Amino acid sequence: MTISVERLERWVAAIFRAEGLCEEHAGTVAKVLVFANLRGMDTHGVLRVPSYVRFIRVGDLNPRPAMVVRNETAACVLLEADRAAGPVAMQKAMELATDRARQAGAGVCLVRATTHTGALGYYTHMAAERGMAAIAFSSSTANMAYHGARAAGVSTAPLALAVPGEHGPIALDMASSIVSMGKLRQAKRSGTPLEEGQALDKDGNPTLDAEAAAILLPLGGAKGSGLSLLIECMTSLIAGNPLLAEALERTALGARHRQNGTVIALDLGRFVDPQEFRRQAGRLARAIKALPPQPGMEILIPGERGARTAEQRRRAGIPVPDAVLEELRNLMEEPA
Amino acid sequence: MTISVERLERWVAAIFRAEGLCEEHAGTVAKVLVFANLRGMDTHGVLRVPSYVRFIRVGDLNPRPAMVVRNETAACVLLEADRAAGPVAMQKAMELATDRARQAGAGVCLVRATTHTGALGYYTHMAAERGMAAIAFSSSTANMAYHGARAAGVSTAPLALAVPGEHGPIALDMASSIVSMGKLRQAKRSGTPLEEGQALDKDGNPTLDAEAAAILLPLGGAKGSGLSLLIECMTSLIAGNPLLAEALERTALGARHRQNGTVIALDLGRFVDPQEFRRQAGRLARAIKALPPQPGMEILIPGERGARTAEQRRRAGIPVPDAVLEELRNLMEEPA
Repeated sequence: MTISVERLERWVAAIFRAEGLCEEHAGTVAKVLVFANLRGMDTHGVLRVPSYVRFIRVGDLNPRPAMVVRNETAACVLLEADRAAGPVAMQKAMELATDRARQAGAGVCLVRATTHTGALGYYTHMAAERGMAAIAFSSSTANMAYHGARAAGVSTAPLALAVPGEHGPIALDMASSIVSMGKLRQAKRSGTPLEEGQALDKDGNPTLDAEAAAILLPLGGAKGSGLSLLIECMTSLIAGNPLLAEALERTALGARHRQNGTVIALDLGRFVDPQEFRRQAGRLARAIKALPPQPGMEILIPGERGARTAEQRRRAGIPVPDAVLEELRNLMEEPA
Repeated sequence: MTISVERLERWVAAIFRAEGLCEEHAGTVAKVLVFANLRGMDTHGVLRVPSYVRFIRVGDLNPRPAMVVRNETAACVLLEADRAAGPVAMQKAMELATDRARQAGAGVCLVRATTHTGALGYYTHMAAERGMAAIAFSSSTANMAYHGARAAGVSTAPLALAVPGEHGPIALDMASSIVSMGKLRQAKRSGTPLEEGQALDKDGNPTLDAEAAAILLPLGGAKGSGLSLLIECMTSLIAGNPLLAEALERTALGARHRQNGTVIALDLGRFVDPQEFRRQAGRLARAIKALPPQPGMEILIPGERGARTAEQRRRAGIPVPDAVLEELRNLMEEPA
């Protein structure tokens, strides 16, 4: 079934209001999740709603967070997120970082103690639309093998980068694993076999069976797991809220759902005329797209496929699988 | 033959002084190149000396640059590098970024118009030793396939991240290609065959023959080439000195050797007690190293192998292949 963007956002917002989020926060969570669907990243879309609701009910996600800003410097700030929903904390963080960047040229916001951040690309995209170059990364619990290990040691920590382009942002949002946890879940549901080098089973042996897959493999071996480890250091350790060490030492805290994030905004207008930047971004995109393609391949600029899908889905509605729809309906009907 | 660090640095510095660099700049170039050898990244070490000398002689590298700082804001600065040797410009850039970070919490320095930056890890390592979390990336000309293309469209743009660790920095320095251009050159010299998915020949066909390999393949397909494209945007386009578009449009400027870079420093002491950060970094490293290993694999923290090699080579000297030694000797003897 396909559902219009507005309707899907209304449904999701209603679910989160019923779970105790204020109207503004429920709207933000709905917007960030539906943004992912809109751009074709369905693994980060509304199918996450039931898990977000579960986080609320077990007390990992605080529906009424008292978010506090501290450690303010000219270019930096730490947002104490009080277990806010990831979209609520991360959107606030990018606003804080872009505000700093307007003043100081660059702005950094560390986010301490949030939950699943949703599609990180939402926040960098938002900054790029405000004329900023933006970087975001976030850390989560151990679900990816550390290079050389038979066990999960790091998270699939995503890295997102975006800049303004000639027709909307040039935007990359990548996991540090070869496939994301969302894509693995999708393969499990659909029974699609994995490709070689994507995952290990629970005992640390390579597997092509999505059902048996338990541990994702890092992008480029030591590169992906090294990147993820550094992201943990640059989010969780600076924010004073370690995730991986707690998980690996199997502490009580380590078993909870927790995330930290870092966003960086750079006011490119301090260096270059923003119009000229967009013109040059367009020139670069055209030069790349003019390259001779491999047979059967289309050359796409980061963010191009998402923008195309968004245009189509904004018109035709968002396809939501029956199983997901059923879960949303149940959540809307049942008393919180 | 193995040569002591001090002697190798002296030789390299003498070569660059003879090419017209001032004593300080020649020393910086020598230090950065020998650092790479010291840590086992021989592809970015003194074997680059002849190409740097060539850059000077054809006028791409300015031995007496008039570097100028402009676009100063509380957290940012642009270094107009005037075609300075990469190590000279990038070291200066990281100093400027860490100075800003001490004041503003975070500091960003864009480097406009430099040359081969050497091992980017040198600069992030330097910042980490000063208690900073640091990120650096740089863009170069098209030598890597854009995902889906049969031709080079982007550079093997490296990304380096470092934070202080318990016993020296935790430091990652990765190319956005599967193998670096330096490693490809090494394979060409030694005649070692490549692995599948690493490179294309000049016509855009996959090849395992290092000799025939002309175009590197991006790490993780669209991820690596997207990262490289975003790095070009976040260095060259913000600094107003496009590299890739010029190269792809085959302009006269596009044929010159040129690089741009961006460095970011974050004063982590503004958020967390630096001692506690190091303690937590050590705790995390221990938890990772305690994971069960894959058969025959050792679990290494980013920077650990380099630190180990450095300790060994500082004692025993740096092994320099005869061919490289011969080139260095010729350069020392011939009149500039």
